[in-house]
Amino acid sequence: MDPRVKAAIEGSLDESIRDLQRLCHQPSVGAQNWGILECAQLMRDLLQEAGVSARILPTPNKGNPVVYGELKGTSSNTLIFYDHYDVQPAEPLELWETPPFEPAIRENRMYARGISDDKGHIVARLAAIKALLRVQGRLPCSVKFCIEGAEEMGSPNFVPFVEQNKQLLKADVCIWEAGGVNWEGRPTVNLGMKGILYVELEARTANRDSHSSWGTVVANPAWRLAWALSTLKDQDENLLIPGFYDDVRPPLPLEIDAISRMPDEDEELRQSLQVEGFLKGVRGKEFLRRHLLEPTCNICGIESGYTGSGTKTVLPHWAKAKIDFRLVPNQRYEDILDKLRRHLDSKRFADIKINYSDGENPGRTPIDHPWVRLVADAAMEVYGSEPVIIPTNAGSGPIHCFTDILGIPVATCGIGYPESRIHAPNENIQFDYFTKGVLHTAAVMERLGNLNKTTLTENLHH
Amino acid sequence: MDPRVKAAIEGSLDESIRDLQRLCHQPSVGAQNWGILECAQLMRDLLQEAGVSARILPTPNKGNPVVYGELKGTSSNTLIFYDHYDVQPAEPLELWETPPFEPAIRENRMYARGISDDKGHIVARLAAIKALLRVQGRLPCSVKFCIEGAEEMGSPNFVPFVEQNKQLLKADVCIWEAGGVNWEGRPTVNLGMKGILYVELEARTANRDSHSSWGTVVANPAWRLAWALSTLKDQDENLLIPGFYDDVRPPLPLEIDAISRMPDEDEELRQSLQVEGFLKGVRGKEFLRRHLLEPTCNICGIESGYTGSGTKTVLPHWAKAKIDFRLVPNQRYEDILDKLRRHLDSKRFADIKINYSDGENPGRTPIDHPWVRLVADAAMEVYGSEPVIIPTNAGSGPIHCFTDILGIPVATCGIGYPESRIHAPNENIQFDYFTKGVLHTAAVMERLGNLNKTTLTENLHH
Repeated sequence: MDPRVKAAIEGSLDESIRDLQRLCHQPSVGAQNWGILECAQLMRDLLQEAGVSARILPTPNKGNPVVYGELKGTSSNTLIFYDHYDVQPAEPLELWETPPFEPAIRENRMYARGISDDKGHIVARLAAIKALLRVQGRLPCSVKFCIEGAEEMGSPNFVPFVEQNKQLLKADVCIWEAGGVNWEGRPTVNLGMKGILYVELEARTANRDSHSSWGTVVANPAWRLAWALSTLKDQDENLLIPGFYDDVRPPLPLEIDAISRMPDEDEELRQSLQVEGFLKGVRGKEFLRRHLLEPTCNICGIESGYTGSGTKTVLPHWAKAKIDFRLVPNQRYEDILDKLRRHLDSKRFADIKINYSDGENPGRTPIDHPWVRLVADAAMEVYGSEPVIIPTNAGSGPIHCFTDILGIPVATCGIGYPESRIHAPNENIQFDYFTKGVLHTAAVMERLGNLNKTTLTENLHH
Repeated sequence: MDPRVKAAIEGSLDESIRDLQRLCHQPSVGAQNWGILECAQLMRDLLQEAGVSARILPTPNKGNPVVYGELKGTSSNTLIFYDHYDVQPAEPLELWETPPFEPAIRENRMYARGISDDKGHIVARLAAIKALLRVQGRLPCSVKFCIEGAEEMGSPNFVPFVEQNKQLLKADVCIWEAGGVNWEGRPTVNLGMKGILYVELEARTANRDSHSSWGTVVANPAWRLAWALSTLKDQDENLLIPGFYDDVRPPLPLEIDAISRMPDEDEELRQSLQVEGFLKGVRGKEFLRRHLLEPTCNICGIESGYTGSGTKTVLPHWAKAKIDFRLVPNQRYEDILDKLRRHLDSKRFADIKINYSDGENPGRTPIDHPWVRLVADAAMEVYGSEPVIIPTNAGSGPIHCFTDILGIPVATCGIGYPESRIHAPNENIQFDYFTKGVLHTAAVMERLGNLNKTTLTENLHH
């Protein structure tokens, strides 16, 4: 990396702290419809101040707006940053050491809701851009920003937004929100996310609860739900919906190889959750392989009848379960939703209603894509250690909009660390890792500017 | 019936209303530990005032006391009244037209919590006794009272109380709490109750909730519970616990015959609950037969994880279900509890805890017992119509203490009617039915006094 750029970044922490203070002081809680538009405007201003031409774009169905930005560089190789300015609710407030929207610095860390997920990442991108512009006058590559405002709500209007703005969002490569270092301080490069289908199953029988002695003759929705759930997955964790696994692409040798190089995390999790072991007895690489590469179905919640203390002899008239399916390439959530409906119908559960909540398709970037090598090499340069290549995250996000709809390879280059406490009280960033993330971003941009464009496109979707 | 007794009863409604006002003005809500001892004392006083020698007896485990009473009559044939002075909680209070513990008269009805279940029945017994004593100077038969104080809480200490007081409670026949007329105004004579086993199934996995993406590897207690429940009963309502049906005595021809004489009630219930039909398509007598004579298992409540609005991607760490089994002769709740445990263990659910709440064994009096004929004939005399003989109620109560532990035949002779709204707001009695119930009680006592003792004992437990 240009040593002047490195020096400029290392000297710019105070400026970034000021940006973080402004951005994190502005609440932007989508679930509470709190401060979204104000934050979008501030976001646009911060981009403009960094020299990025920015504007606020509406999304379909009056969704939260997207902040879009662009700045041409020496090379036409274009990097698009996917980030989000919305944050999780801060509750429970009483567990915060300082108020969630009053950013506070303590011992080399800065605390605020959203400071790691995802405002800190955005400020880090801007810090890299500002340093490059200040030292070199121009960016080595071209950049775009696509900063959405409803990621924490499942990005409900993002797919149609992307489909309507394919030309605007056209780019060669994408840096995804999040990322950073693992427990050992080694940089990580995430290449994918699972898909998700979140539904509520609802059984209703009578118009009101009855005395439980009627259980002989009156249908019980809690029984119907328990029976229906038990037909979805067996005790050995096999999904029983016909065709559920049809589109699962078997793990590639490179994915298996990447997982074999990842550090184990099962023993740490086992102790943290105080469990005797994991499903199907998986440990080590087997644990990682199952966790990252397998689809599954989870019950997030279930409710029916009397749930207070003591006894009540009641036959409830409704029962509900919230379930999510985690999907892997090439499963599609609409297809799984269809198959779920057909399965319930065929098992005599046509009466059970499926209330659709959220759906996102999975997306992964091929491990041997030159973009992955570039991001990894840049990490090696900045952190001095070989990054951990993670074929996919177990969580979900709108990554398929980039990998599949736009056809762009995606990787991460972030400022997070395992104690960032995202979605939890006392969310924070650590300044050393923040600066490393800014350096990594700048190194990535430098390398992208030097790359022959044909190298980037030849290898996608193989 | 002695016409002077009939006249005395018909002229004593005002006196009964005063007794009802005193008794129902005294709260006695076991679940809220409210007024129990005060009500026991008042109960004893009312018995004494009627000429019955009464005292308050403790129950094991510092349970609510039993009010015991006795009065010898011309015949040594002894009738024991089983009743209870405790009542259900009055909540929801806002649905009461007048306060639940301020008895109020409106249009030939009297309203108060517990006035039908079961204080009105007790006052009716006393009204019959007072009229007989006033006219004849002595009761035609001997009577005992066993008025417990925790019936609405599942009679937790009543079995050991009865076992410790077998001699004291010795009697030839028993009149059970409740009973009265059906929708057509015809008297009913109930001869039994089902047993019950109420337990909570509890699954716990980790020490805290996790992000739902861990569903691939971390055990989910809601899944374990759904799977476990689905092994208890199949979609066709067959209980799957090995041995569950072993001790079920097949319905007797006389029970089937009695049911064939009962009025149908399925169409009324179907419309009231707004359901399309009943389990297994039962209607008419088949409905009654299944409802009254079959055991079953009901889910009263189930809870796990996130049950609020919208979505939360969470993997819960505990799940609970409250279930009750309704049992028929000769099932025993302790045996079913053992079988449930063994079944769960054998199905790989040794981790699921069974929290025992309540248990009561079933009890039924043989339809051809002379006591049933006597109570039915007395009803015929008072109501002018053949009573409906109900082989058993679908609900549960400590009836086996009498039918099985004490070996006494049990029948009902009550003041209730279908709009009594027991356990609900605006519980009430209707004065015409109240007086009929008093007359029925007096007629029963007259007939019992005239009966040859050997007739009573020869036919029990055939």
